[in-house]
Amino acid sequence: MRLRPAELLFLFLIGAAGGLVGDAGNVQSGATTYLDDVPRIWESALWFPVMVGLASAGTGEIRLRLAPPRPGYDFRAAGGAAAAVIAIYALTSIVGDDGTESVALLAALAALTACLIADRPAVICGLLAAAVGPLVEIAVVELEWSEYGAANDGYFGVALWLLPLYFAFGVAVSRIAEVLVARRAAG
Amino acid sequence: MRLRPAELLFLFLIGAAGGLVGDAGNVQSGATTYLDDVPRIWESALWFPVMVGLASAGTGEIRLRLAPPRPGYDFRAAGGAAAAVIAIYALTSIVGDDGTESVALLAALAALTACLIADRPAVICGLLAAAVGPLVEIAVVELEWSEYGAANDGYFGVALWLLPLYFAFGVAVSRIAEVLVARRAAG
Amino acid sequence: MRLRPAELLFLFLIGAAGGLVGDAGNVQSGATTYLDDVPRIWESALWFPVMVGLASAGTGEIRLRLAPPRPGYDFRAAGGAAAAVIAIYALTSIVGDDGTESVALLAALAALTACLIADRPAVICGLLAAAVGPLVEIAVVELEWSEYGAANDGYFGVALWLLPLYFAFGVAVSRIAEVLVARRAAG
Repeated sequence: MRLRPAELLFLFLIGAAGGLVGDAGNVQSGATTYLDDVPRIWESALWFPVMVGLASAGTGEIRLRLAPPRPGYDFRAAGGAAAAVIAIYALTSIVGDDGTESVALLAALAALTACLIADRPAVICGLLAAAVGPLVEIAVVELEWSEYGAANDGYFGVALWLLPLYFAFGVAVSRIAEVLVARRAAG
Repeated sequence: MRLRPAELLFLFLIGAAGGLVGDAGNVQSGATTYLDDVPRIWESALWFPVMVGLASAGTGEIRLRLAPPRPGYDFRAAGGAAAAVIAIYALTSIVGDDGTESVALLAALAALTACLIADRPAVICGLLAAAVGPLVEIAVVELEWSEYGAANDGYFGVALWLLPLYFAFGVAVSRIAEVLVARRAAG
Repeated sequence: MRLRPAELLFLFLIGAAGGLVGDAGNVQSGATTYLDDVPRIWESALWFPVMVGLASAGTGEIRLRLAPPRPGYDFRAAGGAAAAVIAIYALTSIVGDDGTESVALLAALAALTACLIADRPAVICGLLAAAVGPLVEIAVVELEWSEYGAANDGYFGVALWLLPLYFAFGVAVSRIAEVLVARRAAG
């Protein structure tokens, strides 16, 4: 592994925490509903933050296997990347539908995030996350563990805005993974 | 011309495409309605993306006649500029009115965009676009080709938020035009 | 004083102006209501812009007593800082409640602003503003000079989103104060 255990754990924890915050908004706004009887944590099924945490650690590791991180350690680069994704995630609950203007806004903000922080490997990680993440969510809906409301099911039963959200997620986790490695040299 | 034919065509095409996306949101949200019987493309009258495309190519050319572009080619600067305007355009459909908070939000985001990417000639292009663009839209409304809804007609019958939208448009097109010229040197 | 009288006055005036714009949105959206019979200016009680102006000048002065400003004068850094806070302030009226997604969005945008522009003393000023500002507003509500609506009273009777709003305010005023001092050297 390119990332050390403590770094993987850090990515897992901030992914799980960010997933919980964003998902609480999605549940409260009615975009998503959990159908199963498994234990809950805040508004989410217990498996949800675990999956987001694993996706975060996995995406960070993939980023570092694709290419070495850019040099230079600045905590604010990682903080800004995380804040951008939380903002986009929260916006998915506020715009609350798959309309043209909502998807255009979220896609533009995801693209803007990538233009500000991504290198080529981060874009690959973003595209990978946008490809795989919604597929997993489609499987979860097929298993009837959760469902998306009628205004948010434009992509094979899940929200169309999952595509820009997961893309931004992949790009941001890549940036955070870079900063974690650059931090080693900084001490 | 300072811009080559292929560059003017590129500006025309991304202007037309961005106009179509943003206008689809404006039509679907009810902010604007087309009244004539001319052919449509997506939600827009056929002349709309043509006018936005011509405005993009023209504004880019004006930017380069005002001053040489700043050196340095980075595709992401152009991509970020385009994404910022699409986001602001999509937001006009989401906030959906000419209220103080809506216009303040859009004006602040347009100003933020300018502070991040504009040089002085780009600000001139933004002010020019904010002066001319709404005038053309007022003429279009007078001709009864389109109209703005009652919540979005605070500027002589057109939306007050057209002012920050066109300003951001002029600033962003200027930045893209700069990058197109800088790209020549980069190969 | 580290700031000259004209600089303190400048901070007072942009704080007062920004407060008026943001508060007009809060009043029109119903987030806040003034209960007293004192003179009004636009939508605000007369004392409101005075308090925001004094808070701006005071926060800027505190920032400069904590540490010297970073070198380099760029007007756009100050303009972007001001625009970011106005945008966040306007958003508080648009999202219009203390829901998870609203507070998460505003907190993420405040954190993003800090990651983009703050140094350590600016973060201290932001935390100080987030601690003191809402306390003053709680006192104002206790005095029955104003009140927050039922959807916006999650923090001891005032809006929970006041915390990220005041934090962003403190960070942005710090950046503007830095630029004002750097401007002296530039000319």
